[in-house]
Amino acid sequence: MSVEVEIRDVSPRDGLQDHFEFVPTTTKTELVRRLAEAGVGSIEVTSFVSPKVVPQLADAADLCEQVLAQRAEQRAGTRFAAFVGTRSWLDNALAWELDEISIAVPATDGMSQANFRRDTVAMLEQAAVMRRDAPETLMSATVAVAFGCPFDGAVSADRVVSLAASLREAGYDRIFLGDTIGVADPEQVRKVVATLVRSLPDTTIGVHFHDCRGAAVANVVAAVEAGARLVDASLAGIGGCPFAPGAAGNVALEDVVWVLEAMGVRTGIDREAVTDAARWLAETLKIPLGSKTPRHRLFDWEESV
Amino acid sequence: MSVEVEIRDVSPRDGLQDHFEFVPTTTKTELVRRLAEAGVGSIEVTSFVSPKVVPQLADAADLCEQVLAQRAEQRAGTRFAAFVGTRSWLDNALAWELDEISIAVPATDGMSQANFRRDTVAMLEQAAVMRRDAPETLMSATVAVAFGCPFDGAVSADRVVSLAASLREAGYDRIFLGDTIGVADPEQVRKVVATLVRSLPDTTIGVHFHDCRGAAVANVVAAVEAGARLVDASLAGIGGCPFAPGAAGNVALEDVVWVLEAMGVRTGIDREAVTDAARWLAETLKIPLGSKTPRHRLFDWEESV
Repeated sequence: MSVEVEIRDVSPRDGLQDHFEFVPTTTKTELVRRLAEAGVGSIEVTSFVSPKVVPQLADAADLCEQVLAQRAEQRAGTRFAAFVGTRSWLDNALAWELDEISIAVPATDGMSQANFRRDTVAMLEQAAVMRRDAPETLMSATVAVAFGCPFDGAVSADRVVSLAASLREAGYDRIFLGDTIGVADPEQVRKVVATLVRSLPDTTIGVHFHDCRGAAVANVVAAVEAGARLVDASLAGIGGCPFAPGAAGNVALEDVVWVLEAMGVRTGIDREAVTDAARWLAETLKIPLGSKTPRHRLFDWEESV
Repeated sequence: MSVEVEIRDVSPRDGLQDHFEFVPTTTKTELVRRLAEAGVGSIEVTSFVSPKVVPQLADAADLCEQVLAQRAEQRAGTRFAAFVGTRSWLDNALAWELDEISIAVPATDGMSQANFRRDTVAMLEQAAVMRRDAPETLMSATVAVAFGCPFDGAVSADRVVSLAASLREAGYDRIFLGDTIGVADPEQVRKVVATLVRSLPDTTIGVHFHDCRGAAVANVVAAVEAGARLVDASLAGIGGCPFAPGAAGNVALEDVVWVLEAMGVRTGIDREAVTDAARWLAETLKIPLGSKTPRHRLFDWEESV
């Protein structure tokens, strides 16, 4: 299918926030540099959040300084984003010349309470305030646990579409659906994304899948076929804790790039460069690769497929 | 989608034929027992082939004796199959009361010569002879390297459909398309399978994917949506050599079962039982799991999705 999709790599944020140890800021800077050099459309660099809650991202300010300094020397076109959990951290993010700020609103009260000690309605209200207080910035919102919640169980498509419409109405530029616990299947994804594309025709829809059941790449394919034009992924499939059964990484960037490019979808990303970067990251973090593509050579004739 | 799909587990044959050491016959028997107990539709138990070429399957006769002996005590409905590489080994397979014999014909002369020292036309002729010489047995044929060949490169859909039609005409009951080197993408799969289903409306079409690019589950989904009703898979995703970069396993049985059942496709397979069996196999062979589902707990509410 001849379309363009923007891939947002979230490995420095979603990938490293659960890592079993603090990763040096210089390694994170190198990670972001390699992603930008490979042509990745946008990179979620870090999260502005209490260092008591997420000590792995306590270097958010230093990291923003470093990656924005090196941006001047890089190929243009990559968008640098940061995640903000609550209104109280928004100003810390706005202190940097970031291209995008992203937030999340869980689809369920159970997840909202567990993560933010307030219900979904209160999360929506806070999201509206944050949008109002950052009027000049591109802002993305993710409806989290959109395909199932560890606390509240199954989530209805109606509820997800309604929340997405509220976030759009509040002024969010891009709406992501997050499969936070990796339980979506391609039929469900196709249905929800297609409904959302019909309901919000002027909105760019994104998806964010974790890979707890092996279905994440299939879910990306279903989402893009249904009209999603933004895809979150994580280099080497990092995320969760590789040593903790029960937590799975995001869908792997290099596998997503391979399958979409093979289908004729343009990502703007250099396959060899992300594959090399994935090998470098797994070696540097001393973790197993959470992806397949870097383990096998690409055939010359695949390039032209 | 409300359809039934038969899953054929090929782990004892395709999974173990490249294993780095010989697996004891008792372990293979236990593997087959666990698969049958979980309700797997058919199991490719072994391959009748020169033990010089595939020493890992040198116990084919002993294994057939053991699994057919224990079949009497098991839940009914599982089909026991064996692979036969050449006419010269057919009689060895026919000596056992197997439910199915499977063969393969590469789609390219390059692969045919490399594996069997004859071209594809000669392979087709041999396939016709084998079918004629085993008139009472259910026989399946796989068009190998149907989505790309390491020697001859890209493979045209026309060639694959033409070979499949020839095998059907020769009397094969079920036709599989094999992605031997794991380079298929879902768009290509959907196109080829849909063409084949239209061309051979009275034939049950199967697919066989290796997972070199992370796209194998997505390819299974695309194939089933396009009309395939047989899917090869391998418990724990075994196959290739886990210690040899460049060889990938078959798509993992338990991940395929999870995604198809989540989509409403009935496989007849107990998800918990295959997940347990996958953990047992990885521990027994001392290899990493090539799948995701066994690493994470299933939520109660998923059962009803």
